[in-house]
Amino acid sequence: MPSAVSMDGLTERLASFVTAARLRDLPEAVRAAGVRTLVNWMGVAVGAARHDAVYAACAAVAPFAGPGQATLLGRRERLDAINAAFINGIAGHVCDFDDTHPATLIHPSATVLPAALAAAEYRACSGELLLTGVILGVETACRAGLAIMPAAYESGWHMTGAAGVFGAAAAAGRILGLSSAQMTRALGFAAAQPTGMREALGSPGKAFNAGRAAAAGVQAAVLAAQDFQISPRMIEAPQGWARVMSAAPNLAAITDGLGTRFEILANTYKPYPCGLVLHPIMDAALAVRAQGPLPADDIANVRVKVHPLALELADRPAPTDSLTAKLSVQHAAAVTLVEGAGGAAQFASGALQDALVQAVRRRVVATADPGLARDQAEMTVELSDGRHITARIDHARGSQARPLSDDEIDAKFLTAAAEVLAPAPAAALLALCRKVETVLDAGALPRATMPG
Amino acid sequence: MPSAVSMDGLTERLASFVTAARLRDLPEAVRAAGVRTLVNWMGVAVGAARHDAVYAACAAVAPFAGPGQATLLGRRERLDAINAAFINGIAGHVCDFDDTHPATLIHPSATVLPAALAAAEYRACSGELLLTGVILGVETACRAGLAIMPAAYESGWHMTGAAGVFGAAAAAGRILGLSSAQMTRALGFAAAQPTGMREALGSPGKAFNAGRAAAAGVQAAVLAAQDFQISPRMIEAPQGWARVMSAAPNLAAITDGLGTRFEILANTYKPYPCGLVLHPIMDAALAVRAQGPLPADDIANVRVKVHPLALELADRPAPTDSLTAKLSVQHAAAVTLVEGAGGAAQFASGALQDALVQAVRRRVVATADPGLARDQAEMTVELSDGRHITARIDHARGSQARPLSDDEIDAKFLTAAAEVLAPAPAAALLALCRKVETVLDAGALPRATMPG
Repeated sequence: MPSAVSMDGLTERLASFVTAARLRDLPEAVRAAGVRTLVNWMGVAVGAARHDAVYAACAAVAPFAGPGQATLLGRRERLDAINAAFINGIAGHVCDFDDTHPATLIHPSATVLPAALAAAEYRACSGELLLTGVILGVETACRAGLAIMPAAYESGWHMTGAAGVFGAAAAAGRILGLSSAQMTRALGFAAAQPTGMREALGSPGKAFNAGRAAAAGVQAAVLAAQDFQISPRMIEAPQGWARVMSAAPNLAAITDGLGTRFEILANTYKPYPCGLVLHPIMDAALAVRAQGPLPADDIANVRVKVHPLALELADRPAPTDSLTAKLSVQHAAAVTLVEGAGGAAQFASGALQDALVQAVRRRVVATADPGLARDQAEMTVELSDGRHITARIDHARGSQARPLSDDEIDAKFLTAAAEVLAPAPAAALLALCRKVETVLDAGALPRATMPG
Repeated sequence: MPSAVSMDGLTERLASFVTAARLRDLPEAVRAAGVRTLVNWMGVAVGAARHDAVYAACAAVAPFAGPGQATLLGRRERLDAINAAFINGIAGHVCDFDDTHPATLIHPSATVLPAALAAAEYRACSGELLLTGVILGVETACRAGLAIMPAAYESGWHMTGAAGVFGAAAAAGRILGLSSAQMTRALGFAAAQPTGMREALGSPGKAFNAGRAAAAGVQAAVLAAQDFQISPRMIEAPQGWARVMSAAPNLAAITDGLGTRFEILANTYKPYPCGLVLHPIMDAALAVRAQGPLPADDIANVRVKVHPLALELADRPAPTDSLTAKLSVQHAAAVTLVEGAGGAAQFASGALQDALVQAVRRRVVATADPGLARDQAEMTVELSDGRHITARIDHARGSQARPLSDDEIDAKFLTAAAEVLAPAPAAALLALCRKVETVLDAGALPRATMPG
């Protein structure tokens, strides 16, 4: 690790980068990754607009909200930009279907997109500036996360809110046109607000973390735009954010290769609406099914080998609701084997209560195998006649080594958005997102999510 | 430390206590401490209404704020209850003149009072319920703080926001009438939002921590009142708040003697508007002056011995503004020696720029003495004729061992409030605060702070 001395001015250097980088100077692949990130998250967030948690959060904050400056995605209400970021942050994360930065386990869009969209609609900026803010926000969040991994995660921080709050502040601050000195303060206010513990996983409290960090980022930016002062060293100082979050932070991860290495290129998009650790298991179940007929009644037992993190996070033999099902190795294995699919329906209450799924779920035996990577799994199904069917997944669909194609992301968008939007407006919204760089008024994107 | 098993249900037990405890069942001394806490903070917060940081924060959040549900103390504006708690939290803390719980270094009112007042005005509740919320909020904040001391403080957390957020949620939740299950969730949302690092000390960012934690507490309560779910074990779970904040939390400190031992009895009130560690030094300076004439020109040097924490926090030989002066051992020693007083004027720019004060400041030599307690100090002034005048303070004024009397707190209130209110309305406000238990509409208190 570089000496503490060389890290002097880190917050200011990061702020300077975030305020100065221009979209046209970024590599084409980075801009494309920004669009993929936007498209993936918009579909997921719009599709979740009618989730119970979104209704509850709206009911809670609406009496306190200000003028309708920003759209609640997929809904008819508008709220002030800070509260809109809060609600959209909950919507985008509550279905566990958003993007993941594998090295930090941050869901980058979860905080960056709601903050960026709220700021963009509030300020009526261009799509180009929106995309700039999104890319730089993701970069800021992931780099901050790298600096405190793995200590912060292991101690219990939910990385999405703990580091993602910087991404929200950076995106909102860039879109609101902060100066470099103001951006330094915005990152400082973000540093004061790491949000969320892993204990909330499995409850809507997890999505609260994303929403709260998104809103905190917008508020940090508007506070910084005024003459409200805070130390310019909130990230790197001995009693600043990094050392509070980790006894030995890697501060260099925040600035090394800034502007030449881009973390957004490592962002991944989920094919299944559930915890990432379940994905290779579901791929394995589909691969088992592909080998021939598999009547559920004939399944004697299902042996699953997974990376240890999968069981640490998701060893739930009897999930009780959709959110816990999305963090259940046993349910994911069983429902995919029985139904041959891994969509929203497979984590809804109908699937949870299905007698056949429950019967297979009880026969799932999962073991941790430290020899497997996080995106690997092995499944062996023993049939009642004694036969064994085995499948091994080397890289889960949607992993960094096997990314979803643009077409797959578009298809995912349309499926998710169909929960709320008719096919024509959903396709129009997708087209807007795809061409975001040339859209004159970025507010057109959130407004196009409003159901007809 | 008790086993983790015995701590199961801790968040729920705390929530149950906070929703059930009745004011009339609390010891008389506890109720009196609640009133002292209220009076002390109200004067300080009202007096800070025109601080630059308060104006800046108002300008930042006003465009996003909702209906005028709650008063900004000492101002004419009203904002929604959540934003009002934010602004009043900044006002109450920015002058470093609020109360201190010595064992945790939490400024309990800083988060509890703004949240309680905003909730009380929003719900139009009785003064009795307001005082109940304040006492239980302080209790919750200080007990949470005890659980993570000293590790969290040493790692860099600003305890006021890091643990005080629970106090805000408890106070607001009680005043808003949450059920025990809802209060469990409110504490859970608070757990997700520890706020603020010590790096912000010396800038208004310190006051941001208080305001943000106050607002977070109110929002936590209103979210909990809806059906927005979060784990009921957010404080005690292995990946919950306590273990994120400290590798070895003392969870028993949260529940031991709950309802029989009251931390608010240990709350202290400052006679001087600056960092607590400076108080014994200022007492010593006054005691030196009391021994005879002390022309500043004759001061050859000033030797100060203090507890090591004083230098860790406040070794600032040349403070540049009011906030850094309030954390300067050298300035506090010099200005009190020269001017014979330790009020707001002694930390304003006039005193900072005074040539005589600056000259004496340069002659202050401060050393840490581990044999001294935090509320002790020793000062020896050497005069140009070679004489020495020495004073030793065993307990600073305002410390637990030498608390301010009610009359002293009242006098402090009137002096502080005089920054904003004329004498008659200030006296009327003080009378309202003193009789809070019998006030029918608690909203009368904040409304009475509005300048005529």
